[in-house]
Amino acid sequence: MPVNLNPPLADKLHAVDGVRLGVGEAGIRKANRRDLTLIELAPGSRVAGVFTQNRFCAAPVQICKQHLAAGNIRALVINTGIANAGTGEPGLQASRQTCQAVARLLDLRADQVLPFSTGVILEPLPVERLVAGLPACQGALKAEGWFEAAHAIMTTDTVAKAASARVTIAGQPVTITGIAKGAGMIKPNMATMLGFVATDADIAQPMLDRLVKEVADESFNCVTVDGDTSTNDSFVLIATGSGHARFATVDAPGWNELKAAVTDVARTLAQAIARDGEGATKFIEIAVSGARSREEAKAVGYAIAHSPLVKTAFFASDPNLGRILCAIGNAWGNDPALRDLDVAKIKVWLGSDKTEVLVSENGGRAASYQEADGAAAMQPAEITIRVDLGRGSASGKVWTCDFSYDYVKINADYRS
Amino acid sequence: MPVNLNPPLADKLHAVDGVRLGVGEAGIRKANRRDLTLIELAPGSRVAGVFTQNRFCAAPVQICKQHLAAGNIRALVINTGIANAGTGEPGLQASRQTCQAVARLLDLRADQVLPFSTGVILEPLPVERLVAGLPACQGALKAEGWFEAAHAIMTTDTVAKAASARVTIAGQPVTITGIAKGAGMIKPNMATMLGFVATDADIAQPMLDRLVKEVADESFNCVTVDGDTSTNDSFVLIATGSGHARFATVDAPGWNELKAAVTDVARTLAQAIARDGEGATKFIEIAVSGARSREEAKAVGYAIAHSPLVKTAFFASDPNLGRILCAIGNAWGNDPALRDLDVAKIKVWLGSDKTEVLVSENGGRAASYQEADGAAAMQPAEITIRVDLGRGSASGKVWTCDFSYDYVKINADYRS
Repeated sequence: MPVNLNPPLADKLHAVDGVRLGVGEAGIRKANRRDLTLIELAPGSRVAGVFTQNRFCAAPVQICKQHLAAGNIRALVINTGIANAGTGEPGLQASRQTCQAVARLLDLRADQVLPFSTGVILEPLPVERLVAGLPACQGALKAEGWFEAAHAIMTTDTVAKAASARVTIAGQPVTITGIAKGAGMIKPNMATMLGFVATDADIAQPMLDRLVKEVADESFNCVTVDGDTSTNDSFVLIATGSGHARFATVDAPGWNELKAAVTDVARTLAQAIARDGEGATKFIEIAVSGARSREEAKAVGYAIAHSPLVKTAFFASDPNLGRILCAIGNAWGNDPALRDLDVAKIKVWLGSDKTEVLVSENGGRAASYQEADGAAAMQPAEITIRVDLGRGSASGKVWTCDFSYDYVKINADYRS
Repeated sequence: MPVNLNPPLADKLHAVDGVRLGVGEAGIRKANRRDLTLIELAPGSRVAGVFTQNRFCAAPVQICKQHLAAGNIRALVINTGIANAGTGEPGLQASRQTCQAVARLLDLRADQVLPFSTGVILEPLPVERLVAGLPACQGALKAEGWFEAAHAIMTTDTVAKAASARVTIAGQPVTITGIAKGAGMIKPNMATMLGFVATDADIAQPMLDRLVKEVADESFNCVTVDGDTSTNDSFVLIATGSGHARFATVDAPGWNELKAAVTDVARTLAQAIARDGEGATKFIEIAVSGARSREEAKAVGYAIAHSPLVKTAFFASDPNLGRILCAIGNAWGNDPALRDLDVAKIKVWLGSDKTEVLVSENGGRAASYQEADGAAAMQPAEITIRVDLGRGSASGKVWTCDFSYDYVKINADYRS
């Protein structure tokens, strides 16, 4: 039951010159499922990526990092069903074989291919079935393939996630289109499993490398569903250079506008993941200001977003707001700089676009607070928790969802 | 549905010379509930405590710390219903008034009284009702009051928690009895909300101050239900000195035996909290060895114990064991020293007293692992996850429970 998240419309997803996508059925884990996606990039495309910080980082993530370092990426291949994580040396072999098979089909070197996997951890990737499924994907390659690809990379997602924009920057038209998947095991750290955003702008490699990190920090790295950073998180930014907009340095006219436009697409995808969080009935934005650093602000945001007690209270629409204070008080576990947090200076508001209720100040309940106002503020499907720490000028946001019976159901039943 | 946790039997809880307990109904939050407990200590008793590290530490915790520093504690007063946390200056006043009222009744100074509260956060403590309920508690004071007190301090607990031991140390009989409460908002850091253990041994104050920390680290500080460190966690150790065993220095004969006996009582209480964790259907011990430090071992233990994905898999008895590896890979978030964790050296076993299955080695699934063995290992109500990090000789344990529909139900309904 995603929160205010509409399925993408095929005709609203703009093709990006230089990108073709094709999907197929490989029977990776179950039959009759589109579980394999091939993305082909035009010569001269530049690619940058950020990946999970999980120490059990998946085999395809390790291969991606190697191949990105070599440069000149021309294809991406994505399977669902099996994550190829916790698979040791055989897992690395399987990812290499996958790249070799794609390279043979498209007349590339294996290190020009980036592999991605998502699904169950600790089970071997059936690489023969994957390879057998590739020719169908190749046959289906088309510039308008984004819509089908957005569906083919889903696992426990209930809605496909895609976003697209056409903007004019420094007088040149720029197209940006992206897809993402993810609903559980979501607390990206550097990236999420999986986000792919492409633009036809021409962006110099050092700038693209920087851009992918900056965009991730403002989008995927602000989302959490359950606090579990996946083994396979990957966010990839593609600049095909097939359009006319060129960005060789940060002084290039329109660079900030481009960054804003790419961030906007990525943020829409990232928020879609929280809106479609497993079992979600509410979408929650946690906006923390008055911090000494952005890290502090996000540490407080994550402490609130990861508290099962806060999340279940939102599911119940119960203004049991002491749980939010409790979570804030524990945030120093995320950032030791918060050990000297003075709770007397903290203010907490609860609200939505229309109304905002001051819940707490001076270390306790606000004098003006009325239970009825709190109860009313808990009703909407989209709620903002605003926290002012009163100790600095930095701020940060975290997006999450509530914690429902269905979260337990989905995760107790997954695999079966 | 507590896991292998029997209610205490009144006649198995030994009275501790120098301690009398009385309970009553104060109507703190709801009527007709025994929600107030008074504990009176004989002159000369020594008391030491450890308290929550939550920055929103509750008013009674702040008062406890002040009064303990003054020494010469002679009474404890405990209410349920309202936590008196997130209550600012009025909350501190309410705790002080509580102590003053107890002092008047028992002819003490107010700073000889320790106050404790548990219940809803952010709501004012109805101190007049509490004070009005004290005389009945005083009238009920008796040495055999442990059983009733164990019940009167419960909130979402389904079973009262008490443990008692009589041992002979250095030729002298020693009695140790304790009670605790807690089922949610449980990830004690220094202590849990609430644990009280008393012994009739005579223990010098500096040794008692040290003992309370050492015991907490081996008992309450190894338990987590939901990762939320409460605002009110308190663990108090009382030595009345009414018996004959005397411990003036660590060289005193039997000191290690005493420490072991007290730790044993505290560990039984701590494990009872995880066994009675909100919605628990399974009790899980996570034993981590091969770490470079105890902190590393516990960081890995907590990463596993706090993963909603691991906890729901245990609820489903589904050997979706990749989720355990994923959690281990994220443990560096709890302890940055684990950033260089080499997953190829990690071994993971799943088991119970009778059987143990090697799940993972060499960064992947163990060659010998069979899904059927994993499924069988997930069936018992008590399961041990054993992890060898292969990088040192330190170890640590964490006890927790699974994550069920009832956890959500309990926490979505609490307050209503």
